[in-house]
Amino acid sequence: MTRHLTVAAAQMGPIQRADTRPEVVERLIYLLRDAAAQNAELVAFPELALTTFFPRWVIPIEEADQFYETEMPNKDTQPLWDEATRLGVGFALGYALKTQDGHRYNVYHLVDKTGNTVGVFRKVHIPGHKEFEPWRKFQHAERLYFEPGNEFPVWSAFGGTVGMAICNDRRWSETYRVMGLQGVELVLIGYNTPLNYAPDPTQTPLQSFHNHLVMQAGAYQNGTYVIGVAKGGIEEGVESLAQSAIIAPSGQIVRQAVTTEDEVVVARIDLDQTKFYKGTLFDFERYRMPEAYESIAAAGIEAEMGLIDLPEEPGT
Amino acid sequence: MTRHLTVAAAQMGPIQRADTRPEVVERLIYLLRDAAAQNAELVAFPELALTTFFPRWVIPIEEADQFYETEMPNKDTQPLWDEATRLGVGFALGYALKTQDGHRYNVYHLVDKTGNTVGVFRKVHIPGHKEFEPWRKFQHAERLYFEPGNEFPVWSAFGGTVGMAICNDRRWSETYRVMGLQGVELVLIGYNTPLNYAPDPTQTPLQSFHNHLVMQAGAYQNGTYVIGVAKGGIEEGVESLAQSAIIAPSGQIVRQAVTTEDEVVVARIDLDQTKFYKGTLFDFERYRMPEAYESIAAAGIEAEMGLIDLPEEPGT
Repeated sequence: MTRHLTVAAAQMGPIQRADTRPEVVERLIYLLRDAAAQNAELVAFPELALTTFFPRWVIPIEEADQFYETEMPNKDTQPLWDEATRLGVGFALGYALKTQDGHRYNVYHLVDKTGNTVGVFRKVHIPGHKEFEPWRKFQHAERLYFEPGNEFPVWSAFGGTVGMAICNDRRWSETYRVMGLQGVELVLIGYNTPLNYAPDPTQTPLQSFHNHLVMQAGAYQNGTYVIGVAKGGIEEGVESLAQSAIIAPSGQIVRQAVTTEDEVVVARIDLDQTKFYKGTLFDFERYRMPEAYESIAAAGIEAEMGLIDLPEEPGT
Repeated sequence: MTRHLTVAAAQMGPIQRADTRPEVVERLIYLLRDAAAQNAELVAFPELALTTFFPRWVIPIEEADQFYETEMPNKDTQPLWDEATRLGVGFALGYALKTQDGHRYNVYHLVDKTGNTVGVFRKVHIPGHKEFEPWRKFQHAERLYFEPGNEFPVWSAFGGTVGMAICNDRRWSETYRVMGLQGVELVLIGYNTPLNYAPDPTQTPLQSFHNHLVMQAGAYQNGTYVIGVAKGGIEEGVESLAQSAIIAPSGQIVRQAVTTEDEVVVARIDLDQTKFYKGTLFDFERYRMPEAYESIAAAGIEAEMGLIDLPEEPGT
């Protein structure tokens, strides 16, 4: 028995600050059509796929609304919803969300082939900082712009069990495990990774290695497919990692992007391949030892400090 | 500031069933001297370094005492302790332990340069099965021979914070994380990995890839050195993975074995290199989100089933 699904990583090149939403949506639609022409049933776009990666600047939060969506779809993105529905293709779109009650999240929005929302994931691990840090060549102020989510749900969709994560989430083994414990078979991950890691420049030349390492380990250790989708190229003077990849439950990279620009990478995967790993080495019911893992979930100073510099309300 | 330590992975070729303890200890001493001649201060030997990998056979547990040590050091291994003390070198030795009260564990025994015990680690994740399984070319009955440990302690030793794991433990991200939360800087891992994974033969050609993948990810995601030490070669007709490696906190392999036989691999490491990762991306206090990790430590059916087919008493 097989459960085939044709998936696409729709990598994007840079989005400059002056690029308008309609211009960007036009690119998304082009990528969507390219993927659909290759029989893709599900297309994953990157993190913050509608705007430039604006956390590279620190601006007053009350002046940042231009970068957030307040409803989805909205008039600018409706053409993407319409075209996907027409083509019968599902997709996952990353963007900044400002909720009705003023909360700000970095989200990944999963849409089925009929245009209906499957789920909206809020990025859990918010890297970087909140205040302006003058020693940086550019800022990484995600902690100014986003509150964290606090869960990694999975959804029954596209014939399997699907989860999502965003950028820094992919570096944490817990991200994959929490979804793995819910039987995830396909994890969609959008990312923006500057090729300049200011806190420790020795990590910069290793960004590509680390990017694939964590996603391949997460796939293998949970017996799940992983699709990592980058925004790459030089955006507002900052070069970002591309290297989008579709990874099998074996941990092997089965397809990867070869450019740093808009590029569609397609793979026909078999969700039943996950059973080989979930049913053998990583038979969780048989082999996990949760009594040895207590410290991992222990709340404490980490939890407090992880939240302490994040705004409870916009503008504070 | 630097905290240099010269470490060695003392890989071993096969140990056949007929090989006596004195013969094996002679090999260990040869490896120890080789490492000491390269200025090694700490030498890691493989899992079950005194015997053949006996879980490949199912025999009545009451007839298996020949494979277990009941005290350590004992008369056969005392020469290793003596030579290490004379050379002023510490070491970690894997062996099967039967305790005074009849418990059987797969252990890793860490000894300081004066011959004193630093700690004894009991393997936590026991793979394989308990009963004879006729469809297998050879058995992997670790669940017959070993009860699990239930913790991953760390120790202050060799100028840093040292932890241990054994074989299957290295495939679980929790192994590294639980030690990482205790500030581990160096994880010693001994392993025996047959190049024939009977439950899913498609994994056999990936054993080398998986071996390095999990150790490299564990190192990077916790900012720790990892030393993986194999017993390789063809042992009692079963070929095992070699590929011993010394891995940096960057996740990079800095040294690796190139044979499948007795081979010493030495690296001069700097334990302060761990600070780059522990202080940036993996600043646990700042960035972890334990409230999202609760399911990882949740006891339940996994915990019960993980223990259910393990003997509480020898012979049961």
